[in-house]
Order: sequence, then C-alpha cells, then structure tokens
Amino acid sequence: MRHVSRNRPFLLRNGAKDFKARKKWNATYLTNVMSGQNVNVALTPHGNADALISLPPTTSSGDGDVHSIFVKPYEIEEPFASVLQAIQAQELSDPPKQQADTPPTRYAQTQNDNLRNEYAPLFGDVPRSIPFARIALEKDPDAINFWLGNSHSCTALHKDHYENIYVQILGRKHFVLLPPLEAPCVNEKAVLAATYRPRSNLKPPTAAAAGGLAKGDLVVAVDEPVAYVPFATWDPDLPDENTTLYSGLSRPLRVTLEEGDMLYLPALWYHKVSQSCNEEGICCAVNYWYDLDFSGGFWSSANFVRSAGLLSMQKEETRKEADGQVCAKE
Amino acid sequence: MRHVSRNRPFLLRNGAKDFKARKKWNATYLTNVMSGQNVNVALTPHGNADALISLPPTTSSGDGDVHSIFVKPYEIEEPFASVLQAIQAQELSDPPKQQADTPPTRYAQTQNDNLRNEYAPLFGDVPRSIPFARIALEKDPDAINFWLGNSHSCTALHKDHYENIYVQILGRKHFVLLPPLEAPCVNEKAVLAATYRPRSNLKPPTAAAAGGLAKGDLVVAVDEPVAYVPFATWDPDLPDENTTLYSGLSRPLRVTLEEGDMLYLPALWYHKVSQSCNEEGICCAVNYWYDLDFSGGFWSSANFVRSAGLLSMQKEETRKEADGQVCAKE
Repeated sequence: MRHVSRNRPFLLRNGAKDFKARKKWNATYLTNVMSGQNVNVALTPHGNADALISLPPTTSSGDGDVHSIFVKPYEIEEPFASVLQAIQAQELSDPPKQQADTPPTRYAQTQNDNLRNEYAPLFGDVPRSIPFARIALEKDPDAINFWLGNSHSCTALHKDHYENIYVQILGRKHFVLLPPLEAPCVNEKAVLAATYRPRSNLKPPTAAAAGGLAKGDLVVAVDEPVAYVPFATWDPDLPDENTTLYSGLSRPLRVTLEEGDMLYLPALWYHKVSQSCNEEGICCAVNYWYDLDFSGGFWSSANFVRSAGLLSMQKEETRKEADGQVCAKE
Repeated sequence: MRHVSRNRPFLLRNGAKDFKARKKWNATYLTNVMSGQNVNVALTPHGNADALISLPPTTSSGDGDVHSIFVKPYEIEEPFASVLQAIQAQELSDPPKQQADTPPTRYAQTQNDNLRNEYAPLFGDVPRSIPFARIALEKDPDAINFWLGNSHSCTALHKDHYENIYVQILGRKHFVLLPPLEAPCVNEKAVLAATYRPRSNLKPPTAAAAGGLAKGDLVVAVDEPVAYVPFATWDPDLPDENTTLYSGLSRPLRVTLEEGDMLYLPALWYHKVSQSCNEEGICCAVNYWYDLDFSGGFWSSANFVRSAGLLSMQKEETRKEADGQVCAKE
C-alpha cells in the first residue's frame, strides 16, 4: 500500500515460487493442457509488436528527417501447439534465421484477460488475484494475461493506466522503467497508425495459410480511417536519438525478472520489455492488471506534467522552424 | 493510509471524545495546571497573526494598485493566567471593544511543539501520538501544538509541508480547504515581510509593560534586512479580489470542527481558519504535525503545478504591461 501511495515499483524475488505454474509449466505440460485450443498470436517480421518503425527520408522534403509509424502486429488464430513449436524453433535455430523466407516472429500477448478466456485451462495454475495487491488496491484484477514468446520479441516503451503485478514463470524478462514524471523525456508524438498484413497477392489468410507465412510476406498497411496515436518516440536504449530537451535528465531503472519473480509496476510508469528464454526456448509470464485510483491528485498531476512536456516540445519546434526560416532567408 | 495516499482530508466526528483533555479542560482547570507558567502570546490589533494587510495606493504610482504586506504578530511572554483572562475578557465584552485604547487581540499559537515544552503540564491530557496516524505515516509527530484564542483571531490562507491531525477541544474552528493542485488559484506573491511592534516612544517592552499595551500602540515595522515571503494573496472569502486567471475555478471545501472532532488535514492543502468560542469565551485546540513523505512523486509534482501557476501569472503581468504601453502610446 505504501508503494502504491508513492507510485514506486518493487520486486519480490521468488515471490511466485509457490504458484502451481512455477512447478508444473514447461513446453510439454502447456501443450498437453492446451491441446486442441486455438489462440490468438501476433506476427511481426522483426519481433516489433506495437512498436515504431522508421520511414526513410522522403525525397520531397529532402531535409533528412526520419518519420516514424506505429505498427500493430498481424493477428491470427492458430493451434496453441503450433504457436509454441514455432516460438521454440525460432529461438533454438542456430544461427538465427533472418531471411525473408523464414517464419515471422510469434508472440502470444493479447492482453485482453486471455488467461481467463482462451487460456482458461491454465488459469487454475495461478492465483485468481494477488492477495497483497487485492488488499492494497481494494479490488480484484480487471485483466489477467498470459504471455508466451521468445527473445526475438521486444515491447517498445509505453505506459498503461493500470497497476500491474508482473510474474515471471519461465525464462527472464528485462524491464527498463521510467516514472510518470519523466513524461517530458520520452518525446511523445502523434504517430501514424498502421498494421502488418500479408501481401495482397497472397491467398486470403486462414489459420493454415498464416502458418505458412514468411517474414517477407508481411507488409505495413496504414490504418483506415487514418489515425494518429500518441506514442513515446524516445528509446532509453538509444538515448541520443529522438531526444527532447529533457531526455538527458531521464534516469531509467533496469531490472531483470528471473523465474518466480514478481514485479509491482506502478500505474503510468513507462516500460520497455525484452526477454530471454529458458533451455526449452520459451519465455512465459503472467500479469495482473488492476484499475488505477483516479480519486486523488495523482492522475491529474501526472497528466499535467505530461501536457506541459508536450507544450514545451511544440514551443521548441516553433523555435526551430523560426530559426530555419531565418537561415532560409540568408 | 488510503487518505494519505490520495492526499485527501477526512473528519472524525467526536474522534477525540476519550481524550482526557475533552473531559477535564476548562478555564479553571487550565489556569490551575498552568499556574505560575509564562507563555508566548501573539499580539495583533485586528486578530491578524501571520496575515496580509493592504497598504493604501501610493501617490507616486497613482494607478490605484493596493499593495500588500505580510505582518507577523508582536510576540511577548506573559503569565498563562493573564493570557487566558485577556482572551476571555475580549470575547465576552459586549459590545466588542474596537477602540485604539483597548487591548490587542491575543492568540497563543506558537506552533513550535509548545505542548511538549511551555505547555508540558497539559501534555498528559492528550495522546503522545495519534495511533492511526502513527501507523499510516510510520512516524511520530515532529511537533504537537496547543492553540488558545478567541473569535477575534483568524489565520490567513496558507499551507504547511506537514501532515496535520487537528483536534478541537473547546469551542469551534472553521476551516476553508483547498487542495495543493489549486495553487494557481491562490495568487501566491512575494510579499514584503514585517512585524508588529510597540510604538518607539513607549517604554521598552517587558511582560508588565506589554500587558498594558493597547491596539493603537502596535505599529508595523518592515523587517531588517528587507525580505519578501511567498504568500497566498487570494482569499476564498473575498473571491472576486486579488484573483488569478484560475481563482474562479477553485472549489473550496468548508468544514467546522465541533468539540471533540479530529480533522486529517493533508500536507500542502491550503487552509484558512477562523474560530468560535465556547460559553467561557475561549477556543482551544491541539494539533499533531507529521513530516510529509518526500519519497514519491507528490512533492515534486505539487511544486511543479505551483511553479506553472506562478509562471502563468508572470506572463499575464507581462501581457497586461504590454497592453498598458500600447494604451499609453495612443
């Protein structure tokens, strides 16, 4: 409760050691329990589900600017066993297959309360809620999510308006964390929204057809109607690119969750997440999302700081444009 | 703990009903227990300890501006029995004596942990800490203060960087409360600091001499060296005067503490306090100050909002000055 009050993360090393999931889950068990179940899986060519990709400079502007686009994954339904095998095969292939004719990266990451729905056969292996979180937050989880992927997938820096208890079951996850007040550091911009889809000269996607898709078959299609989504364009792992005036002041926290560890990731904290696999070639986690408390000053003050950061970016852009006009006149 | 987390006040009606102070304290008891003790008392002509007074327009500027000055009370040491009697006599006189030759308003309000020092004989009548506050805040009080005054005293709108448990023992207190995020409403300005002192042609102040001081003997002396203190110049009871662009958005909470009531007044909340007396002509309270928690984002974000408000005031002033110059040219 004190950590929630301060909006500060903590890590419980081996806090989930008594979860049945920690004792029972492995590739064979998951395959058996999920036998015959279809699940949603995100396909991307580079493991970049819900991430930015850079567009090359346009010849018309000619100013060397690199523009970004926010790309959501191509989502398909596949038998769970196929998803698991594809994730393992990609991870364990040596050397890694990067060619366009190899399969895309798969990540089961729906974040729609999937552990109480499509993964229901596994739900009995974890608590229905986390006791300390239920007491501190005075509520039950809004969503409980199952995550299965490999080291090829990385989740870009973003924030959620949920209190988050993240539990590592198999493999490891590597978090980079920034508090909400570092919003002015992350260079949030309105980015064009797009989605990966198969090239249009392929057959209509079916489960079977999708299974045969290769990396090179996925192309970026701008969403219709055209939409822009606010997204952090600064990457704490590339701290000198896409900076704001304040990015250099950011002090990212880095933490690796080992098997059995539980992380309290407070609401509105920015997080970037990469992963490492166990010896079976999988990384598997469960997380609990609890709605944040909007009743105090936290939500409004965090958004005020974020808005002030956005305003300062606009002013900086205006200043740069004005400088550019002066140069052009010379 | 949840209220601290949300920085939101609450009132425990009759929460202090079991305090010995509630059962034992009255004018006779206080006089007997404090017999022979000298105490610090604040003297002011108008009950305005730690408050703003307005200066009339200066002839040089001629623009009708009213400037304010922050005046601290004249502090003297007096026998407790004399203080109590003077407070009662002023309250119970009918009609109230407003003339310059009547005694100034007295208010025992040192706020320097006085209940564990000069009022130590009374400290046994209240808890050493408030159990729910000690548990929620994980600390003991930094200061415990005794307050004794009458309806002539009013404390101007201000904030403290303490968590506050305010306990009404005798009489009533009337609080006007504003959350920290309303800082841009209160028109905080750097105000010239001053202190009441006796006119210089009076004898040097001694306890006996001070006892004979009249309202008209107190004059305002600007502090040396000259200092400016940041102070809220907007008064929620005069909402149309000294406004900022945001004052009209303020939604003050008003609460009256009856005898035995306990108020949790969260850190950084602005409060203005006036008082009503019991039938003995006194108003008596005790409060517990606990240091605020600086470890989360609360302190920094509250100050950021306050600073943004100050910046917007500067910009508004600049705009008004620019408008004024345009008018002057016409």
